[in-house]
Amino acid sequence: MTWESLAAKKRASVVDAIPPEWRLKEVPSGDSVMSVPKESGILSSEELTITESSATDLVNCLHDFFPDYALARAKYLDDYLAKHKRPLGPLHGLPVSLKDQCRIKGFETTMGYAAWIGKTDEENSVLVSLLENAGAVFYVKTSVPQSLMTCETINNVFGRTVNPRNKNWAPGGSSGGEGAILGFRGSVLGVGTDIGGSIRVPAAFNFLYGVRPSHGRLPYAKMANSMEGQETIHSVCGPLGHSVEDLRLLIKAVLAEQPWNFDSKVVPMPWRGAEEDAVKAKIASGGLTLGFYSCDGNVVPHPPILRAVQTVVEKFRGAGHTVLPWEPYRHPYAVNLANRIYAADGGADIFATLKLSGEPSIPHIAALVDPNMKKADLNEVWDIQLEKWNYQMEYLARIREFEASTGRELDAIIAPITCTAAIRHDQFKYYGYATAINVLDFTSVVVPVTFADKAVDVKPSDFEPLTKIDAAVHAEYDAAAYHGAPAAVQIIGRRFTEEKIMAIAEELGRLLNQ
Amino acid sequence: MTWESLAAKKRASVVDAIPPEWRLKEVPSGDSVMSVPKESGILSSEELTITESSATDLVNCLHDFFPDYALARAKYLDDYLAKHKRPLGPLHGLPVSLKDQCRIKGFETTMGYAAWIGKTDEENSVLVSLLENAGAVFYVKTSVPQSLMTCETINNVFGRTVNPRNKNWAPGGSSGGEGAILGFRGSVLGVGTDIGGSIRVPAAFNFLYGVRPSHGRLPYAKMANSMEGQETIHSVCGPLGHSVEDLRLLIKAVLAEQPWNFDSKVVPMPWRGAEEDAVKAKIASGGLTLGFYSCDGNVVPHPPILRAVQTVVEKFRGAGHTVLPWEPYRHPYAVNLANRIYAADGGADIFATLKLSGEPSIPHIAALVDPNMKKADLNEVWDIQLEKWNYQMEYLARIREFEASTGRELDAIIAPITCTAAIRHDQFKYYGYATAINVLDFTSVVVPVTFADKAVDVKPSDFEPLTKIDAAVHAEYDAAAYHGAPAAVQIIGRRFTEEKIMAIAEELGRLLNQ
Repeated sequence: MTWESLAAKKRASVVDAIPPEWRLKEVPSGDSVMSVPKESGILSSEELTITESSATDLVNCLHDFFPDYALARAKYLDDYLAKHKRPLGPLHGLPVSLKDQCRIKGFETTMGYAAWIGKTDEENSVLVSLLENAGAVFYVKTSVPQSLMTCETINNVFGRTVNPRNKNWAPGGSSGGEGAILGFRGSVLGVGTDIGGSIRVPAAFNFLYGVRPSHGRLPYAKMANSMEGQETIHSVCGPLGHSVEDLRLLIKAVLAEQPWNFDSKVVPMPWRGAEEDAVKAKIASGGLTLGFYSCDGNVVPHPPILRAVQTVVEKFRGAGHTVLPWEPYRHPYAVNLANRIYAADGGADIFATLKLSGEPSIPHIAALVDPNMKKADLNEVWDIQLEKWNYQMEYLARIREFEASTGRELDAIIAPITCTAAIRHDQFKYYGYATAINVLDFTSVVVPVTFADKAVDVKPSDFEPLTKIDAAVHAEYDAAAYHGAPAAVQIIGRRFTEEKIMAIAEELGRLLNQ
Repeated sequence: MTWESLAAKKRASVVDAIPPEWRLKEVPSGDSVMSVPKESGILSSEELTITESSATDLVNCLHDFFPDYALARAKYLDDYLAKHKRPLGPLHGLPVSLKDQCRIKGFETTMGYAAWIGKTDEENSVLVSLLENAGAVFYVKTSVPQSLMTCETINNVFGRTVNPRNKNWAPGGSSGGEGAILGFRGSVLGVGTDIGGSIRVPAAFNFLYGVRPSHGRLPYAKMANSMEGQETIHSVCGPLGHSVEDLRLLIKAVLAEQPWNFDSKVVPMPWRGAEEDAVKAKIASGGLTLGFYSCDGNVVPHPPILRAVQTVVEKFRGAGHTVLPWEPYRHPYAVNLANRIYAADGGADIFATLKLSGEPSIPHIAALVDPNMKKADLNEVWDIQLEKWNYQMEYLARIREFEASTGRELDAIIAPITCTAAIRHDQFKYYGYATAINVLDFTSVVVPVTFADKAVDVKPSDFEPLTKIDAAVHAEYDAAAYHGAPAAVQIIGRRFTEEKIMAIAEELGRLLNQ
């Protein structure tokens, strides 16, 4: 079978999985589909209240949909509760959407590759098993871009995933399906992965919270991936959702299962309530010390993002906290290190997978890696690994200098996560704000802040680009086209500071009245 | 200058650093030099009491000796104490010997390479700085084999380091200088590194304790190394010494300095007293559950080692603990994975360094890597990394099975660390007992148990070798030649279980009356 017919069959199988009574009677007009669940008449008001929606195919965010499996699981959990008079675990009955890298025994993980259609998984990803032990209910696997290595979500099997707030905008990527389904309230809590912004960009573009934990905090074992075995910059798992409280619920549930007994890369570090309490005491007394930066030295963010950062700085200052400028140390260098790793095998892994079915690379990937690219020599990669380590330590030295000169402990750094609000299709040009943090392996939590406003976020007339890519990013800005697009920031902390940074992100949400 | 004259000059500089009044009047006869400090007349009885010895050149374990620097530092610490009425830190005034990978600003780190003679270090290794902050006094840098990648200690600059108990035996390697100087009581506490047994083998061969912590527990940053940037199997730092109490003193002192603020690879995990207390309660009640194995399926240990394991099993059982057989899961496979990584660059890094001075490779290294070997392709290394991860997880699954079938938590595993007692020169053939644990990144603590005894440890007459290397190891055994050689075991725990495994090792020492 050709890759085209394999893909068509797979697409049809997802549509077929939607019962006729759950389907829309007519295709909605307009760019935003956010009101469709309410107006479709398919969902009862009770169903709408629990934000369950079957209309997520409008944004094309599904790689798999299995309501029968989910309903059977829900029935099992109901029976369990009735029989044992206690829930199975802290996530008892909670629907959790899974990015299509998560393996569930008996299901397919295609990651949007035609070649992987029809390959049934023989075991769960470790995270899937632990969520299941905690009582979660799985019902969908959500879309990703071909190879995962881009921040827009498009592949040859399912086509393009769009942003539910405006079909002309991208949902971000690579956890773009998660971003779209959550943004649309077709999911209350989801699981993504992040090697260069893939949790944080979709969170930002869909007005969500998202956590990129440090590598080794949550289990990644037995997930599908591109370039498996690449360990210079680790992809990590993390939740996306509508509140920090929800994200914390998921992380605490997983840590309570002692993931280090299942995934050897997970550090035996339970949820540290003492760390959370300590920062909450600081928050209560207006005693946080925060750094912030608006520009990484490579690309100046669009006006909505600059305004988002400024808003956050003012909110924290207004609450009595100390917010000081942070000099982003050699971020362009860090971005370059990341690029060298992402392309280290010259695309060999990606092209080998494409070749199996004969499907072409999507344009975003063709631009990133091409088959004539040279694969890095092993000693070159060892040199990059040494450069990365040294860079990380220089960053720690900057933090120590900051603390020595201010006499204060640096609790977190406020920064853009993208240089744009949710972006028009095929216009995502720069992931450096995300990627530098992956190189540092720092904990980062995305907080939704505001929406682009054409009346306020005026394009500057006297712009002097820092770099060629800066000029290209600037040229894309159009206040009218981006009106209403979500704009976010990330709150960044040192390695393994999830308890602390999530508490600070939660406080920011409170200050923003979300 | 030729490498030979560079090396000769460096050797002479170490000898010249020894003041004439500290030199021996005559070269001692006999294979053991253990009694030389006592009989030389150089040391006062008070000096002997504090186990300070200048005669370590007999075993050739020094790459650098700097008594003036050490005495100046001791003076500084004395003045500090007099002025501030409190010590500088928990190691105030404690002499600590350093393996010649540790960099001290202003000194040389040659690692036994002629090419690195004369290159003065511009900064300290992170561990050196933290030990210094804690009050340590440095006075020597100890010998290593060329490239570090062998368990006997010989290089072209300094020649061979021997075992102070018998000059015909190796001190182990690569921290062989540490093993020799500590065995000889020329040091009370030292720092080594371990990528495949390099702390544990010298500890075993010199009747010492030694800890290989999990990667990320102690700082390694800014140490000299071979194959820098290789991160598939990480070399780690750890202490060697005469008691677990001493090793704990050093580790706690370093963790108290928050090494994660200096070395980005260190996990922010302070010393966990609660973990230590929990296992001590188990110990007190005879409640430990231990696994043990005597053979890894590749090589049968010599009789003294089999007896050491049996002794330990009986001691723990005698104290009321539960000791059950542990099946060493696919250790030959793990050893093979390690070998593929150690030789992954086809020796490119080592040969490049040798070429700088023109010195030849030592025979042990020539046997490991040769210039015609093929360098691994990047995707091959990624495959090895994936194989390693899967292997580690299969091992965790075996532990879960053990626990499920016994209904008991597995606290530790007792195993050989080498297949032989301290070995005759150039006879070290198999490091698999050590290496499999590096592949797992498990915590391991070596405990000295006994000495080979020609009357008891008789060579079996009906030996059936498991493998070719097993036959070669067996052929080397000679009860008379090994009489008196130290024999040890390692106590192994999961990743990041230093508190627990050190407490169990300490209890074993107590049971053995050491």
